Amino acid sequence: MVTKLLWLYLLNGKTTDNLIEQEKEITDNPNRREHDMLLSVGEQITISKVCMCLKELDYDAVSLLGWQVPIITNNIYGNARIECIGNKRIQQELKNNNIVVIAGFQGVTEDGEITTLGRGGSDTTAVAIAAAIKATRCDIYTDVNGIYSADPKIVKDVKKIDSISYDEMLELSSLGAKVLHNRCVEIGKKYNLPICVKSTFEKDSIGTILKENDVILKSRIAGIAKDDNISKITLIRKENSNIKIDNVFKLLSENDISVDTIVHNFDDQIIKDISFTVSKDNLNKVLEVLNSNLEKLYLQKILTNEKLSKISIVGIGMVSNPEICSNIFEILYENNINIYTISTSETKISILVNKDISENILNRIHEKLINI
Amino acid sequence: MVTKLLWLYLLNGKTTDNLIEQEKEITDNPNRREHDMLLSVGEQITISKVCMCLKELDYDAVSLLGWQVPIITNNIYGNARIECIGNKRIQQELKNNNIVVIAGFQGVTEDGEITTLGRGGSDTTAVAIAAAIKATRCDIYTDVNGIYSADPKIVKDVKKIDSISYDEMLELSSLGAKVLHNRCVEIGKKYNLPICVKSTFEKDSIGTILKENDVILKSRIAGIAKDDNISKITLIRKENSNIKIDNVFKLLSENDISVDTIVHNFDDQIIKDISFTVSKDNLNKVLEVLNSNLEKLYLQKILTNEKLSKISIVGIGMVSNPEICSNIFEILYENNINIYTISTSETKISILVNKDISENILNRIHEKLINI
Repeated sequence: MVTKLLWLYLLNGKTTDNLIEQEKEITDNPNRREHDMLLSVGEQITISKVCMCLKELDYDAVSLLGWQVPIITNNIYGNARIECIGNKRIQQELKNNNIVVIAGFQGVTEDGEITTLGRGGSDTTAVAIAAAIKATRCDIYTDVNGIYSADPKIVKDVKKIDSISYDEMLELSSLGAKVLHNRCVEIGKKYNLPICVKSTFEKDSIGTILKENDVILKSRIAGIAKDDNISKITLIRKENSNIKIDNVFKLLSENDISVDTIVHNFDDQIIKDISFTVSKDNLNKVLEVLNSNLEKLYLQKILTNEKLSKISIVGIGMVSNPEICSNIFEILYENNINIYTISTSETKISILVNKDISENILNRIHEKLINI
Repeated sequence: MVTKLLWLYLLNGKTTDNLIEQEKEITDNPNRREHDMLLSVGEQITISKVCMCLKELDYDAVSLLGWQVPIITNNIYGNARIECIGNKRIQQELKNNNIVVIAGFQGVTEDGEITTLGRGGSDTTAVAIAAAIKATRCDIYTDVNGIYSADPKIVKDVKKIDSISYDEMLELSSLGAKVLHNRCVEIGKKYNLPICVKSTFEKDSIGTILKENDVILKSRIAGIAKDDNISKITLIRKENSNIKIDNVFKLLSENDISVDTIVHNFDDQIIKDISFTVSKDNLNKVLEVLNSNLEKLYLQKILTNEKLSKISIVGIGMVSNPEICSNIFEILYENNINIYTISTSETKISILVNKDISENILNRIHEKLINI
């Protein structure tokens, strides 16, 4: 039966891929509402089949769709945000001793329209529901055995992290650790709900627990992440004028574009220009928005660089620990590495480097800072 | 684009077959609620894709699921009955000049559970919605060009019926004409809503219109139907007692089993026994219910015959027209045919005959009565 469940899991992925392919045969630019109507089907198939499996094993179970819970979201189709979750139906089903199997990745607007949550939506649903029913913990079963100090596909000798704070995880997940989505960790943090990430495939997997910081006096590094899915954008000002920086970011925010690692830089001897990174998926949208407002923003032109990777060293007390910083710079110096941008905060130090050397750098930093 | 739409139509059938196959891999006896949760997916995929196609053709369109309309049903999963339909949302979408594409075959209970309507559910949805929004007519596009005087697969030289009354259609559809489901015709009759059955595949198909009887003075035959999906059940009484006939039918009705063509018969010299036909799908359920109540109902045993077909001649003023009756009996007599049961009503004459000769008989009756 476990085999059957795994098979279901794989099948759902296939179903969704299949639906997207069918959609592509009809249109390259599907209506967002209809797209969500179509894609929400994948989890609906899965939850009903999981319940059938559970009943075969003699467990009482009931499946619930997003609108049946209800999981209320805003109306940003394809990337909706959970606004609130009703817990009455779930509590009632639990009271009746049912295992409640809820469709993730989907919700419903207040007007009764089906939405999907976009990337990481399934995990986010799980954590939000756990918070709504005041669960003591949310366990997320995934394909890895927890959070690691770096991506095991890139770095040798990675260490599994037994416990990590929400803030550290936020930095790691937003920077490419790919295990948990930011929104999901944010909800855990907001409701102080411990989240345990475990492997579906290993029995007695202990995994990694995310929870509020224990009081830690000394700084420590939790992990190192690399993100290739970034584009660096540099705005060149019009001669003898200042870029309307506040307007730039207002415009981007109005278009739902998140900006990361904003720095003034001095490339090409031009000063007072500004650089920032965005997710590669958003690059076209950014260029479209800014190019149609060049005059208004006092911009001369826009440069892009897509051949960069961002490496982020995440931990507690990063900036206040001179040893960590000096170690990082030592590695960069020893290896004669050209850094494009460096940004620091209380919980991370990020550097932008050429993509082709990024794996090498990640390994060296990991070796020096984690495996001591 | 028309090709694409047809392809979608075919794909939906394939999707549902596929889901049923996946279900069978999990269980032979799926929970009814979860079964409906799973199967309602088929039309959800179709409506979203149809809307995408319409938008590609520059029409405004919006898809609606059963619960979004809402189409309220009772809670008989797999065979739910529409109880009422809200027309507010549909009217609002029509006002906004949207083509409204509604998922058929599905509804929602008052408690918010997804149901499917069972056989003929898609057509029934269409007619019920047309009634709810007070449409002047409901057009049903199907794979045939209308209602015929008999099944063209069995009878040569069938005639297309241009116009037929609800009552005639009810007799024809319940007896195997398979074009429209009874429930769908009943709703049309109740709300006096003309229903037009047309071909999806023929341009300018005129089809058949179902509507209230015009005043017809002379009798006429509308069509002849054959139903192989029947089982004849004969109840043999206990010696020296009378079968509790009223209790038998009460029990069957409590178990949602429709009974047809009830007659006392005199097979095997035993009198005061009773025969009736049920849909073959219900045979096991009938036997289960009755066998567990043999004593209480004063039954000695139950005989079944599954090798019969029912041929029904449907029209207006059937019984009051001696010519029709005499013609039918002449054919049966000439061909030396053993009739198991005959039943008559104002709108039909039904005979039960051996299945292996039923096609032959159907052809002869059609030839004599329709093609004059």
